[in-house]
Amino acid sequence: MIVDTLIEKIAEKQNPACVGLDTSFSYLPETMQRAYAEEKAAGVLEFNKNIIDAVCDAVPAVKVQIAYYEPLGAAGLSAFAATCRYAKERGLIVIADAKRGDIGATAAQYAEAFLGEGELSADFLTVNGYLGTDGIAPFMEACKQNDRGIFVLVKTSNPSSGELQDLKLADGRTVYERMGDMAEAWGDGSCGRYGYSRVGAVVGATYPEEGRRLRARLPRTFFLIPGYGAQGGNAAMLKGCFAAGGMGGIVNNSRGILCAYQKRGGTYFEAARAAALSMREELLSVLGEICAK
Amino acid sequence: MIVDTLIEKIAEKQNPACVGLDTSFSYLPETMQRAYAEEKAAGVLEFNKNIIDAVCDAVPAVKVQIAYYEPLGAAGLSAFAATCRYAKERGLIVIADAKRGDIGATAAQYAEAFLGEGELSADFLTVNGYLGTDGIAPFMEACKQNDRGIFVLVKTSNPSSGELQDLKLADGRTVYERMGDMAEAWGDGSCGRYGYSRVGAVVGATYPEEGRRLRARLPRTFFLIPGYGAQGGNAAMLKGCFAAGGMGGIVNNSRGILCAYQKRGGTYFEAARAAALSMREELLSVLGEICAK
Repeated sequence: MIVDTLIEKIAEKQNPACVGLDTSFSYLPETMQRAYAEEKAAGVLEFNKNIIDAVCDAVPAVKVQIAYYEPLGAAGLSAFAATCRYAKERGLIVIADAKRGDIGATAAQYAEAFLGEGELSADFLTVNGYLGTDGIAPFMEACKQNDRGIFVLVKTSNPSSGELQDLKLADGRTVYERMGDMAEAWGDGSCGRYGYSRVGAVVGATYPEEGRRLRARLPRTFFLIPGYGAQGGNAAMLKGCFAAGGMGGIVNNSRGILCAYQKRGGTYFEAARAAALSMREELLSVLGEICAK
Repeated sequence: MIVDTLIEKIAEKQNPACVGLDTSFSYLPETMQRAYAEEKAAGVLEFNKNIIDAVCDAVPAVKVQIAYYEPLGAAGLSAFAATCRYAKERGLIVIADAKRGDIGATAAQYAEAFLGEGELSADFLTVNGYLGTDGIAPFMEACKQNDRGIFVLVKTSNPSSGELQDLKLADGRTVYERMGDMAEAWGDGSCGRYGYSRVGAVVGATYPEEGRRLRARLPRTFFLIPGYGAQGGNAAMLKGCFAAGGMGGIVNNSRGILCAYQKRGGTYFEAARAAALSMREELLSVLGEICAK
């Protein structure tokens, strides 16, 4: 079961961190940008492969943000697909960060694209639950059929996430709590051996108090935690997103890893590896040893 | 200004209807499916071009639903791009229905992809506002810079849209009213000569009462109205989404046009044209003459 596999990889590597391949062409070293000026998607793919090679023994997963590939059109989508494939070949769990969401018939198409057997296939997909249960059901069907998982946007890491998500409902809950409750319910009956279901939640590292509340509220929901590093989140802030034994979440870092060479010097892939290892240390210093149980 | 152009095309053609190119390969006539079995994306593109040729003098716009192209991978995305390009060449306004939404830096990438000058470029893009203002700002910048528009998901047409969208907030508004208010505010300062801004709203034909309330509440917000036909919406139900003079909205129909040949007989493109013309008649019988003013 894919959530169990993710948890076991996190425990095996003692690292609840995920490298975000939000690879803007502008992140590439200048020499690479010059070399690939006429074939940007190929440059992005080459960069990603070298990052993957450098970090694949240190991290359990990558999150590939499709938005950075779509401006390059069909060639960009091919680079996205090849990146996902290569990461899987190197033993990594692949999270497609595409935040898809639509009415049932249309969601079924997205599910086929990202949670099926096609070119864009990944292990997990981020989804937007604004449309409610019938927009999520096709993703759940694909999850059960093909052993995949989803992460529902609950409390996002960006500064204005509260405008809608923090609003109080008449029943006393906030909108993000209600969305979290829906995610927890959508996961019903799909729990693996560690007690987490196929339906996870996106919970930003930048909102520690909300993270703590959601962790207590949603015991079966695994968290994908963005916002670490460039967005201002750190290990102490996201501790509350985790349950006992450092379980229940995976923390994403994109620019802090991809662009580490700009601060650390050295090659971009060596710098990425060093950044991934420091992040691991920072997380473990707060979470302690991670136990899959 | 693109919203003015859309309105003028609606008035010129006396048709506030939009053909939804949600082209599943399974919608193609069997002979076409056999001919294109090994190159599905090419089959979808050929089908779309024939539909566009058949309807381009009768409708002002097409809505291209990217979810139906993504399962075909990079070739599918090329077919999506070529469809958008061809529709523009034939004088149609192109709405990319992709429901994108993410944090600011990432939304900027989506904006570049769909509202920039690249391969996937369209006149309008549907977006999801769950992340709040900083997730929408990059789209607005692209809209102003490149003369484009967006439609924010407000009240969607699907059966379970109310699970989140209809919830009452502590201040007495519903979630969808609050989202509508945000859309109206995001449009501030971008109104064209007919009083509608670059920020529209998606409002399902299947919820007449909510549509009526939103029309009164959001005077500067142009509506994209899905849910007509296969989803159960009809002209009488969506009348309340329109202001005086049949202004303020455009109604989408996808399967009812693309698959019209299955009910009407004849070629798929002749049947599509006939279905588009009947839909026009049905809408005008309820809305009366459409006046751009």
